[in-house]
Amino acid sequence: MSALRKAVYKKLDPDEKNDRVSRAIDLFLIVLIAVNVLAVILETVAAIEARYRDILWLIEAVSVAVFSVEYAARLWVCVEDPRFRDQSRPRLSYMLSPMALIDLLAILPFYLGFIVQMDLRFLRVLRLLRVLKLTRYSSAMSMLLEVFREEASAFFAGFFILIVLLVLAASGAYLAEHQVQPDKFGSIPAAMWWAMATLTTVGYGDVTPVTPAGQLFGSLVAVVGIGMAALPAGILASGMADRLRRTRAELAEELREALEDGVIDAAEEQELEDLRRDLGLSKRVATEIRDKLLRDREATEAGLCPHCGKPVRHR
Amino acid sequence: MSALRKAVYKKLDPDEKNDRVSRAIDLFLIVLIAVNVLAVILETVAAIEARYRDILWLIEAVSVAVFSVEYAARLWVCVEDPRFRDQSRPRLSYMLSPMALIDLLAILPFYLGFIVQMDLRFLRVLRLLRVLKLTRYSSAMSMLLEVFREEASAFFAGFFILIVLLVLAASGAYLAEHQVQPDKFGSIPAAMWWAMATLTTVGYGDVTPVTPAGQLFGSLVAVVGIGMAALPAGILASGMADRLRRTRAELAEELREALEDGVIDAAEEQELEDLRRDLGLSKRVATEIRDKLLRDREATEAGLCPHCGKPVRHR
Amino acid sequence: MSALRKAVYKKLDPDEKNDRVSRAIDLFLIVLIAVNVLAVILETVAAIEARYRDILWLIEAVSVAVFSVEYAARLWVCVEDPRFRDQSRPRLSYMLSPMALIDLLAILPFYLGFIVQMDLRFLRVLRLLRVLKLTRYSSAMSMLLEVFREEASAFFAGFFILIVLLVLAASGAYLAEHQVQPDKFGSIPAAMWWAMATLTTVGYGDVTPVTPAGQLFGSLVAVVGIGMAALPAGILASGMADRLRRTRAELAEELREALEDGVIDAAEEQELEDLRRDLGLSKRVATEIRDKLLRDREATEAGLCPHCGKPVRHR
Amino acid sequence: MSALRKAVYKKLDPDEKNDRVSRAIDLFLIVLIAVNVLAVILETVAAIEARYRDILWLIEAVSVAVFSVEYAARLWVCVEDPRFRDQSRPRLSYMLSPMALIDLLAILPFYLGFIVQMDLRFLRVLRLLRVLKLTRYSSAMSMLLEVFREEASAFFAGFFILIVLLVLAASGAYLAEHQVQPDKFGSIPAAMWWAMATLTTVGYGDVTPVTPAGQLFGSLVAVVGIGMAALPAGILASGMADRLRRTRAELAEELREALEDGVIDAAEEQELEDLRRDLGLSKRVATEIRDKLLRDREATEAGLCPHCGKPVRHR
Repeated sequence: MSALRKAVYKKLDPDEKNDRVSRAIDLFLIVLIAVNVLAVILETVAAIEARYRDILWLIEAVSVAVFSVEYAARLWVCVEDPRFRDQSRPRLSYMLSPMALIDLLAILPFYLGFIVQMDLRFLRVLRLLRVLKLTRYSSAMSMLLEVFREEASAFFAGFFILIVLLVLAASGAYLAEHQVQPDKFGSIPAAMWWAMATLTTVGYGDVTPVTPAGQLFGSLVAVVGIGMAALPAGILASGMADRLRRTRAELAEELREALEDGVIDAAEEQELEDLRRDLGLSKRVATEIRDKLLRDREATEAGLCPHCGKPVRHR
Repeated sequence: MSALRKAVYKKLDPDEKNDRVSRAIDLFLIVLIAVNVLAVILETVAAIEARYRDILWLIEAVSVAVFSVEYAARLWVCVEDPRFRDQSRPRLSYMLSPMALIDLLAILPFYLGFIVQMDLRFLRVLRLLRVLKLTRYSSAMSMLLEVFREEASAFFAGFFILIVLLVLAASGAYLAEHQVQPDKFGSIPAAMWWAMATLTTVGYGDVTPVTPAGQLFGSLVAVVGIGMAALPAGILASGMADRLRRTRAELAEELREALEDGVIDAAEEQELEDLRRDLGLSKRVATEIRDKLLRDREATEAGLCPHCGKPVRHR
Repeated sequence: MSALRKAVYKKLDPDEKNDRVSRAIDLFLIVLIAVNVLAVILETVAAIEARYRDILWLIEAVSVAVFSVEYAARLWVCVEDPRFRDQSRPRLSYMLSPMALIDLLAILPFYLGFIVQMDLRFLRVLRLLRVLKLTRYSSAMSMLLEVFREEASAFFAGFFILIVLLVLAASGAYLAEHQVQPDKFGSIPAAMWWAMATLTTVGYGDVTPVTPAGQLFGSLVAVVGIGMAALPAGILASGMADRLRRTRAELAEELREALEDGVIDAAEEQELEDLRRDLGLSKRVATEIRDKLLRDREATEAGLCPHCGKPVRHR
Repeated sequence: MSALRKAVYKKLDPDEKNDRVSRAIDLFLIVLIAVNVLAVILETVAAIEARYRDILWLIEAVSVAVFSVEYAARLWVCVEDPRFRDQSRPRLSYMLSPMALIDLLAILPFYLGFIVQMDLRFLRVLRLLRVLKLTRYSSAMSMLLEVFREEASAFFAGFFILIVLLVLAASGAYLAEHQVQPDKFGSIPAAMWWAMATLTTVGYGDVTPVTPAGQLFGSLVAVVGIGMAALPAGILASGMADRLRRTRAELAEELREALEDGVIDAAEEQELEDLRRDLGLSKRVATEIRDKLLRDREATEAGLCPHCGKPVRHR
């Protein structure tokens, strides 16, 4: 039983990229999720829903069946996962992990439809959260999430400023415009719709200040806004770039160790290739790193400083 | 008396994160500010104001009372603050510091309402500036302000260019459009509303050029604009990233000193943890820095270059 | 024959910047492409088409003739190109290369017009793809494409998130608004038009939520959107900056080798100049790199550490 | 005569920050330019023009008089400027320099008004170019221009892509929409107005696609657009950050030299302060650089590696 469980765990692990069955399962699930999401989207178009109701229902039924089996299987094998294995209640910890909750959310609406008397339309749309199941298969996506966690404090500072600006912008616009346009700037919450559209530079234009004071204030808000609103994005992008740089350094470290004995044998080659894929680096970048290292090594052997390529003299 | 003052100072200091009473006071004030700001916002909605007038008034009264006590207390203990202690007139310097002025601004509208005969609505909205009181409690926020001060010259250069572009864009659009749309582009100040919306890429669309010349010029302004308008944000984000890097270097420096004797004892551990929190770094980043340092140390002891991991040979 | 082919290859190569004939051919083709694209654009204006039909037709005829000759010539000489020379079927590999496909696309619409019975207007507009022929002549453009390839994984993660957000935003807005505005938010695909305009911060304003729930959700989408939508751009820009830095390092490496013997002779000077132009670096930057290197060299000869300028002491 | 010329040159030089007369002249000119630009802007408002015509005329007359004298004076003393002194025709080179042309443009409209019979309104607005005279006084502004020149190749690649995208986006939208909205998408030049608004994310909303095909294509354009349009800005911001970093390194180099003898005397202190101001660095950053250097120095003297603070062992 334990051996079977271990085997199933390996097949379901999205990181097992060398196993053909595992890769096939991944691909099948990715396609199924994509088809499913597309079906839910198209179902909301009345004409399509009327004509293809049966096919859409079939897709839904098959999907829920597969996802249910997947959920049960993952729950069964989660005790093999090193992240949960050593915890006191591995199955419960797994069930409360983000990915497991997303998996549950993907099948729950279907079963709820039978039990609870709810707005069916709402339940149907809830199925779109299945799109989040795709995050399991994107290594770059998980890197982004890591960066997000790392730079979280700077990130939230940006959002905090955004909220403060939102409150101040809305109150200023309310003061300037509420008498001229009581329907659009009649209260601060109403004015917030305008403030949001301006600070994020979306600028729908359905609500705009018309008084000179309102327009002057609006201009100020827009100018300050572009600086502040782009901040979280800038921090995230810069953090992402930093992370990529560190990832490259990590690969370089491994390479160095592999090069210790002067040659990279086939086993080391495979290991490095796996690492490269894990880190989500392109082949080109990996080759560049390796070339630099080899150059450094030669320089050191020739008695040159590996940093600057000049002979190290000792007087 | 002086001992009591010192004790109160410690309780009010938002950096005292190990004292439970201090943390409770901080939390209470943060919640009160948030509730208060929400109340002021909702008060401008006529329906809510009519129904919950009494509760809103109660929130206001309690808030002003608490904020008044807080202001008096902070003014009393400010002579304990190292930033003001050594100045010739510590209390006056404190009263003129940005945070104290914000604290004053938070209670002034209420008292002014009794004394001066002013537009009450204006006074009420002024209370929203209380949201700025929150800045005291955000360490990341203060980092942002520091970056802002550091990169100020580059920042203002960006804004200066924005103003120059605004003037030139408005005058060009005025020339091209003032005869066809005298109501919208009748003067340069009027055209500035369009220029601002275009340069910041907000693009409300309430005012747009309609002549071919105006649209050609508008396109040019928009294309140049996206480059210029995003500049301050880019500089700020890049400065923030740079700052984070330097902050990490600072922590590494401290770590190195703690590691001097080969081990990190409990006291040093606590000190480093405090520093990490002060610098606003995530635990993950701190651990990464420490691991790198330990690796370097081992390498040095093994006679390897700490920079490149290769043996340092002396011929 | 082979000698002629080699000569023609050299004349057509956009990298041969020291040959006057080659440069003249490049310039002629660039101007022809630009004139041609302009002609196609103006042809769609009814008034211009009616008046200048003959001239426009002449431009088209001459262009197609020249481009056809160019295509044939390039196909003939491609066996001289080191990228295709050593392949088993060099001509076929060349024909399937992106640049050759673009070249084919530039002449195909004209010939197709005679053969197939198609919507002529569509064929005409297709000619605008000729603008892509210009990419051959922009060295900076190819650098951008390289960066794009390098950072591809981070880039696609950004786009993947954008699509997930698009689906979630559209479904949320559909739920909140489809009963009030069935014409604009009647289905999720319809709501996607709004979601796209909001997440990219374009914000046309032709479709906007009007219910409080829709506006609240819309605000959330806009705030999250600015962070996510700017991500690919930020990654690309940061990658571009990184690439420029590495390019400079490459030039520095070459310089160092040239400086090995202490002087840079005329041949080395020419070589470095060629390299600089290849790398797309400005003269100013190149001079800065050289100055730094020379300073380092002097320092090393004076027994100073090239990294910090202080004497290297050996005790 | 030559001595007087030299004295006037020094007074007019905006970099002479230690001379009180020179500073007073700078300030006077800056205020005059600002007042003048404001006057020109307000003059286009009919109500203000009618009421304050005399004052506005006076401002104009005084400004032109001062600017004329300034232009003549600068032309006279330009032979003292090291940038023009050594050229064969220093006065002509100066007259053709950007700053001199801007100075000429600032007075020309006034004199042209007497000579040529032109649209007066156009001439008046032309006076707004006087705002460019301010660039002489902003050191950060000149740094931005330098960065612009350095990253020019990457920058123009970004703009080239923008133009290619503009052409392709406009032609696609023209194909999809010209039959449904012939007034808005009737020709490619007309469709370019929409394409520009979308690619720059301005999104006025006066022109939007309405067909499903047009909206699908529009969404694609918007998504690709945000990546591309932000590119020039990102490159510029990243280049600016890089420049700031190099500027700091330059200051560090100077500091190191000043520290060679172990102390910084008053003359060196003044020199460093001048350099810091020239480089546009904040005091805080300068102090940080100095502290790091002093720490390094102490470490070296104690026989520690200046890079990692650990003892340099020689076995």
